[in-house]
Amino acid sequence: MNTEEIAKKVVELVRKQAWYEALDTLYDDNIVSVEAFSMSGGSPETRGKEAVRGKIDWWVNAMEIHSFDASDPFVGHDRFVVQYDADVTDKNSKQRRKLSEVGVYTVKDGKIIREEFLPRVD
Amino acid sequence: MNTEEIAKKVVELVRKQAWYEALDTLYDDNIVSVEAFSMSGGSPETRGKEAVRGKIDWWVNAMEIHSFDASDPFVGHDRFVVQYDADVTDKNSKQRRKLSEVGVYTVKDGKIIREEFLPRVD
Repeated sequence: MNTEEIAKKVVELVRKQAWYEALDTLYDDNIVSVEAFSMSGGSPETRGKEAVRGKIDWWVNAMEIHSFDASDPFVGHDRFVVQYDADVTDKNSKQRRKLSEVGVYTVKDGKIIREEFLPRVD
Repeated sequence: MNTEEIAKKVVELVRKQAWYEALDTLYDDNIVSVEAFSMSGGSPETRGKEAVRGKIDWWVNAMEIHSFDASDPFVGHDRFVVQYDADVTDKNSKQRRKLSEVGVYTVKDGKIIREEFLPRVD
């Protein structure tokens, strides 16, 4: 798949909240996934498909997802961007909040090799 | 300035359509500016501040800008993203159209060293 096809597939799967299917079908084994902040004071970078699977496990277990919207993708060369707007409740703290961020994805040889998540700044 | 400060400044200046001020104050001399497509069959990459000034000259001369909106920035580490939605008429062809794209910016040592423009794909 080329960058545009992968971008459209990411949007399709995220809209279905099919996180594991996206990981298994679209991601390179050596994916680097970068958050803006680290959750536990460690590195904001996660390396490798199985480590990213752990992030999805955390997300699915920690959050009650009221809604999760993905924009149409923005595509150029080996890069694409998708905006996500979510309404979630942290199951632990019971705190409900809205998340707005973009994912910046890099594609190589038909797989996603890097993703960076950038939260909206008011 | 850090990444967030530069991101906010880009948004402030673009909302005023102060393209040259943004270039002169926020961009590195060795800026690399990447379009999704090349306009004349050449490289989609433009290198250096003066070459990017030429792109702005082209834009300002070629387009009648009815509106140009910039989103709040999305920021993480050395990267930020801004979504642009414009309503323009090409002065030459008289064709009016809406543009929707994101700019993906990379910052180093307080200056923008790379920008990539990715159009929205329906």
